[in-house]
Amino acid sequence: MKWCRFQIGDTVSYGIVEDEVRVIAVSGTPFETYTVTATTYPLSAVKLLVPVIPPTFYAGGLNYPEHVQWWAQYSGTPPRVATEPGIGYRTNNALIAYDEPIIKPKDASDEFQVEGELVAVIGKKARHLSAENALSCVLGYTIGNDVSQRTWQIQDGSLWRAKNSDAFKPMGPWIATDLDPNNLETTIRINGQVQIRFNTRHMLFNAASHIAKISRYSTLHPGDVVWLGAEGATPNMRPGDVVEIEISGIGTLRNSVVAEA
Amino acid sequence: MKWCRFQIGDTVSYGIVEDEVRVIAVSGTPFETYTVTATTYPLSAVKLLVPVIPPTFYAGGLNYPEHVQWWAQYSGTPPRVATEPGIGYRTNNALIAYDEPIIKPKDASDEFQVEGELVAVIGKKARHLSAENALSCVLGYTIGNDVSQRTWQIQDGSLWRAKNSDAFKPMGPWIATDLDPNNLETTIRINGQVQIRFNTRHMLFNAASHIAKISRYSTLHPGDVVWLGAEGATPNMRPGDVVEIEISGIGTLRNSVVAEA
Repeated sequence: MKWCRFQIGDTVSYGIVEDEVRVIAVSGTPFETYTVTATTYPLSAVKLLVPVIPPTFYAGGLNYPEHVQWWAQYSGTPPRVATEPGIGYRTNNALIAYDEPIIKPKDASDEFQVEGELVAVIGKKARHLSAENALSCVLGYTIGNDVSQRTWQIQDGSLWRAKNSDAFKPMGPWIATDLDPNNLETTIRINGQVQIRFNTRHMLFNAASHIAKISRYSTLHPGDVVWLGAEGATPNMRPGDVVEIEISGIGTLRNSVVAEA
Repeated sequence: MKWCRFQIGDTVSYGIVEDEVRVIAVSGTPFETYTVTATTYPLSAVKLLVPVIPPTFYAGGLNYPEHVQWWAQYSGTPPRVATEPGIGYRTNNALIAYDEPIIKPKDASDEFQVEGELVAVIGKKARHLSAENALSCVLGYTIGNDVSQRTWQIQDGSLWRAKNSDAFKPMGPWIATDLDPNNLETTIRINGQVQIRFNTRHMLFNAASHIAKISRYSTLHPGDVVWLGAEGATPNMRPGDVVEIEISGIGTLRNSVVAEA
């Protein structure tokens, strides 16, 4: 099932996407109780919103082997050898939906990069999960673009503006349920040209490991999201570019890049 | 004015605290529109809640001179010489209200410490503020205890469980408006004994500097909070302790410490 959050006129609601052409409006949310209504819209007639505003926005660290190597070379630091998932955070101010523009700040250098990532969306309250039962709290999966300004990332020694500036966190287009997060193909395109393809099975630490680790000390809540990292060298994006991140079984997150006015 | 969020029976609402003995219920919130109702409760009859669940939970870094020196010595690292505020994050899972217990995890060492902090609560959407007009977006101020497990902080190289485990972020008791954040006395007591006193005028970077810096790249939203750091050596807390953080003009945030079951 594919859950979207959408707006039509002044009304915001959750909906079920069918065949990527139709949305059936739902009363309630997939995180609580809901009722499927008799109202249907063409997908092209609604504005897709960020599928959830997370109470806590978790993001894993360097989580694919080639990205670890690339980052070490790019940043001139030794490759990180991790024995368990790194847990960090991003911020809600930065979230934008499918088709909303990624804004490149005026003073950002050209090292303004795309990171296409699988995102686990938590569906129920959970604590003290094991890697074996961790996925039991997951509602489904969506797609994130962990936009990164590398000059700031290296210079600041903090991810504050490098990854959390306004419009740096596209997420969507919807949440797909009933997927195996350990075998999904990710394809990243800029202006239709494939930049990189990778399978989620190459994650150093999978979705279940991240969720189990977080839940050792922190209660996961419905709507929390866990971003799971990008592979390889991450390409620059320029104003005018159209960036697409496709993950098999979910769909395509598409955003254009604009220069800050 | 003192704004609280409270529960009585099954009803959650905002209220105005009068003379620290009475709560006048309000319909709406201080972040949007509100109406003062005719309903009043004795303060002792209501359960105080965390005064706001922040969309984004900002926390400044090492922000007082003696704390910078102490941390350098404690952690065996060179003292940080900062030219502008450090901007980090905390997580909502960790929030607890006035009088709710701080839970010391089973596997936490005795280096389980209190950090008493002034907290700025954002009242309106803001971007591109200067240090001169930054406080115009502030609704008021509350108190935070940035509970820190130092062994994990040093060992993990991340603040994930060291500062964001469940029940590590007491915040309250309410939001006080019309204060000058640059001249407030903070007093930290454990079991009634004063541990440290300091004035917010000794911050390395004040509330306005933090807010202005964040707003250069990130839109601040109503309900966002900015925690502003603690001074000095931070004392250990043990199960059974009662920890009080008093800030002049606001009130006292009180929590007991319990061992994880």
